Amino acid sequence: MNTQTLILIQCQDAVGLVAIISNVLAEQELNIVTMREFVDETNNKFFVRVVCAGELYNKEVLHQALTARLPANSQVMVNPDQNKRLVVLVTKEHHCLADILVRHFFKTMQAEVVAVIGNYDNLQEFTEKFGLPFHYISHENKSKQEFEQELADTVSSYSSDYIILAKFMRILSPDFVSKFKGKLINIHHSFLPAFIGANPYKQAHDRGVKIIGATAHFVTDDLDEGPIIVQNTKSIDHSYDVTKMRNAGTEIEKAVLSKAIQLLSEDRVMLHGNRTIVFK
Amino acid sequence: MNTQTLILIQCQDAVGLVAIISNVLAEQELNIVTMREFVDETNNKFFVRVVCAGELYNKEVLHQALTARLPANSQVMVNPDQNKRLVVLVTKEHHCLADILVRHFFKTMQAEVVAVIGNYDNLQEFTEKFGLPFHYISHENKSKQEFEQELADTVSSYSSDYIILAKFMRILSPDFVSKFKGKLINIHHSFLPAFIGANPYKQAHDRGVKIIGATAHFVTDDLDEGPIIVQNTKSIDHSYDVTKMRNAGTEIEKAVLSKAIQLLSEDRVMLHGNRTIVFK
Amino acid sequence: MNTQTLILIQCQDAVGLVAIISNVLAEQELNIVTMREFVDETNNKFFVRVVCAGELYNKEVLHQALTARLPANSQVMVNPDQNKRLVVLVTKEHHCLADILVRHFFKTMQAEVVAVIGNYDNLQEFTEKFGLPFHYISHENKSKQEFEQELADTVSSYSSDYIILAKFMRILSPDFVSKFKGKLINIHHSFLPAFIGANPYKQAHDRGVKIIGATAHFVTDDLDEGPIIVQNTKSIDHSYDVTKMRNAGTEIEKAVLSKAIQLLSEDRVMLHGNRTIVFK
Amino acid sequence: MNTQTLILIQCQDAVGLVAIISNVLAEQELNIVTMREFVDETNNKFFVRVVCAGELYNKEVLHQALTARLPANSQVMVNPDQNKRLVVLVTKEHHCLADILVRHFFKTMQAEVVAVIGNYDNLQEFTEKFGLPFHYISHENKSKQEFEQELADTVSSYSSDYIILAKFMRILSPDFVSKFKGKLINIHHSFLPAFIGANPYKQAHDRGVKIIGATAHFVTDDLDEGPIIVQNTKSIDHSYDVTKMRNAGTEIEKAVLSKAIQLLSEDRVMLHGNRTIVFK
Repeated sequence: MNTQTLILIQCQDAVGLVAIISNVLAEQELNIVTMREFVDETNNKFFVRVVCAGELYNKEVLHQALTARLPANSQVMVNPDQNKRLVVLVTKEHHCLADILVRHFFKTMQAEVVAVIGNYDNLQEFTEKFGLPFHYISHENKSKQEFEQELADTVSSYSSDYIILAKFMRILSPDFVSKFKGKLINIHHSFLPAFIGANPYKQAHDRGVKIIGATAHFVTDDLDEGPIIVQNTKSIDHSYDVTKMRNAGTEIEKAVLSKAIQLLSEDRVMLHGNRTIVFK
Repeated sequence: MNTQTLILIQCQDAVGLVAIISNVLAEQELNIVTMREFVDETNNKFFVRVVCAGELYNKEVLHQALTARLPANSQVMVNPDQNKRLVVLVTKEHHCLADILVRHFFKTMQAEVVAVIGNYDNLQEFTEKFGLPFHYISHENKSKQEFEQELADTVSSYSSDYIILAKFMRILSPDFVSKFKGKLINIHHSFLPAFIGANPYKQAHDRGVKIIGATAHFVTDDLDEGPIIVQNTKSIDHSYDVTKMRNAGTEIEKAVLSKAIQLLSEDRVMLHGNRTIVFK
Repeated sequence: MNTQTLILIQCQDAVGLVAIISNVLAEQELNIVTMREFVDETNNKFFVRVVCAGELYNKEVLHQALTARLPANSQVMVNPDQNKRLVVLVTKEHHCLADILVRHFFKTMQAEVVAVIGNYDNLQEFTEKFGLPFHYISHENKSKQEFEQELADTVSSYSSDYIILAKFMRILSPDFVSKFKGKLINIHHSFLPAFIGANPYKQAHDRGVKIIGATAHFVTDDLDEGPIIVQNTKSIDHSYDVTKMRNAGTEIEKAVLSKAIQLLSEDRVMLHGNRTIVFK
Repeated sequence: MNTQTLILIQCQDAVGLVAIISNVLAEQELNIVTMREFVDETNNKFFVRVVCAGELYNKEVLHQALTARLPANSQVMVNPDQNKRLVVLVTKEHHCLADILVRHFFKTMQAEVVAVIGNYDNLQEFTEKFGLPFHYISHENKSKQEFEQELADTVSSYSSDYIILAKFMRILSPDFVSKFKGKLINIHHSFLPAFIGANPYKQAHDRGVKIIGATAHFVTDDLDEGPIIVQNTKSIDHSYDVTKMRNAGTEIEKAVLSKAIQLLSEDRVMLHGNRTIVFK
């Protein structure tokens, strides 16, 4: 049997933390398969992701054994749920959604899509091919507050781990964001912090850049300012007009967003202020 | 004999431009080896770089033949000087300078360094190993105006095609910039337009980016806003502190700046407003 | 109206070819929008791809006008069919097929899939979601000859421009290959010519490589030896076992194959012996 | 004071290894700053690289404490020498040597060059600029055995950690290789295992590849078959003839070789059969 136990810890740094953790694990007859740690020396913080082999008799016992010996206020997670549930929000563009739905359908990510919500209905047919519910919630003829209330209600009707903004082109209010704190993931179609805001490819063309990029990040109150999870770039040249940039960009966007979902689903991402620790 | 003729043209777009140019060349018994063109349809501008084989009897005759048949106000260059002369400005960091001097010494670029100027003297010994003059012009105990006057005088004492700011860390005034318009090339240690200004690696670390970059660009009045020639990026992760970012950055910076110098030396870069056309 | 005319020429190199071509086009009142050429000086061959704006009155007239003035035996194509028809062959892996079907469904490539053929039936359900015929042709309990005859008959029952081997894991005989000469496109899961043949990821792991890759190429008689169209690579490290390599590989494979299909569909690829000229 | 202790261990895998190691370190009042491990589950082998903060009282005591509790035949290294000594072998090409000498001169690698040996003398002047001895050992008018004897004597006259073949174009005999087992590092100008042997760029051009690469590897008896340390690649197109490939290749070659030297100098590379574990 190939049982694995996953442990995530975030705490004050201190002497002997690895010894403490590895001793607790040895006492529980768990063998460390991989251990990735990071010490932020400036802020005196310790992060670790451990994968163990061996049967875990009792999750609570392990949790308590670790918490008892680690510094006060340590955050310890033992075996977080493995099959993350995703709600995907879209507008009109299909490329990120399609990439996610294909992975969902063929079960190549440790996550499943439970619903898709669109403020247009043009991706409904495609979504339903995969047997998934599509909620069409138009923003038209509604106040922003009404629109977001409807959105929030529908999102909340599903228990979900992450809400994926897969080219969802409406700016969400701080109210909405705070309701789903730490669960909102966005794909921004530029190499942040370059070209924040609307029309990044137009901005990029005007600036004459020789590289375009995409950024998957947690959403916080400040537009396009949340902790970055994955970024990637692609070289372009003067022959790229805005449309060609946008088309080339779709390839980066979908790859970056899917990579972020994979990392989140495998519990490889830890939040650290406005940054992320990503244990690949 | 392997004579080649290089022709660069920038003009209003019009029907039949390639026919006009290729006819003139055929009449002069010049055979097109490579022709790269770009039409900016928005601004109705045509750019072309042509390399021909065959002996060029008279540069002036060819220039006139082209100008006579092209739209009014066309910019035509026939066989620009091939061995560009570079003055290199440095502060304390050696990596870009060293890369350039090695290429100079082994003659692997179509350009030669004629002098190095530093506002510190710590790169003097290294420069002089290569038999090149090093001018130490400190900015200390001088007004900015005095400093720049001295700098400008020294630069001007050499006839040069480009002035390479190879990690020159003083901001130059609009006055200085206008004096050497179109000839100043800077390497900025970020993927512009992200992290304009001072301490880009500090800014990048605070923002938690997953990619760093460098940008070689023409210098204009607006700090870090001139036309971009070359950019490149490199993936990093959370383990990079500012120092490690800076060290990783040096590798990109020197590669990007040397690439820009190569492209400029081979007359592959054409200015087009705040953008560049780069015929690789 | 935004009419464009596409012209592809492959011929002996000679003085004045660009003049000849651009004159013919000017006479036909066609304005060159982009022209990309390549001269193979070793083999004295000239290749060009021209896009013109302006209404084309008569395709045959243009073809004759060009052929009349170009060297003997020139290959000239005027406006090849724009919407290429693809037959896709698969075995069990879905990633390349899914990527192609999504592009087909959303019409983001200048090509359409007309049928999918599998030697297993596990991709039938997915294919049929997109309203496309899936032909299940098992190789079991048949001679290779019988299997290939069935395959060839089915392929031939569709008029198609390219037959895409999208992770089709049966080796095709020279007979089959010669029947569809120049139309068979394969994705090989390595950076050719490294790791020719079976189990390239196993071979790559044994060799301890630090980079994996994928190659899209025309199929010729020699296994994995046909002209290469697109290649790409990705850095890996010692922690990649064969399974992780294969998973990482799927991302490169699908991107490389789709890029090759895009280039072929836009008539940007010209065959030149065992190499390709790709005018991006 | 910023004392760090570096520990490298390679042993049979077993339950509780991390606990054992971290306990020993805690007992010695050493605090783990970074720990990178790798378990080869197929071969049941454990590799770890640990950096600790805290003053190390006695290297031998720590070594014994670890060895006593680890599985039999464990290889343990405590604080290997930090400033590696390099002898560099060259033929005619300068690019790798120059890159290394610049890093040597500005002390940006944890290694110093102690001598350069060339079978031609054209890099002597450049080497001597940096105050380093250059030994010109021609291979002409000598048997291979005589040449290698002279080479070996000169190499051996320096105590060195690594012998860097920086574009040294003579094939070394198994005898020579066995004399310096585990210390010979080569840069091969292709993405191994593609294009083993002579003229890889010629081979690459004939094959029509769209990517070129370089490989830094340990030298073993089989030509170009030793454990790979670093590889990198660069996209090219049909316009690259052999010379242009070779020039583009020099940029990859020097970057890859210098990266390998950096990793070796920082004791980040562990040999594991014909593979390497590289803890970046």
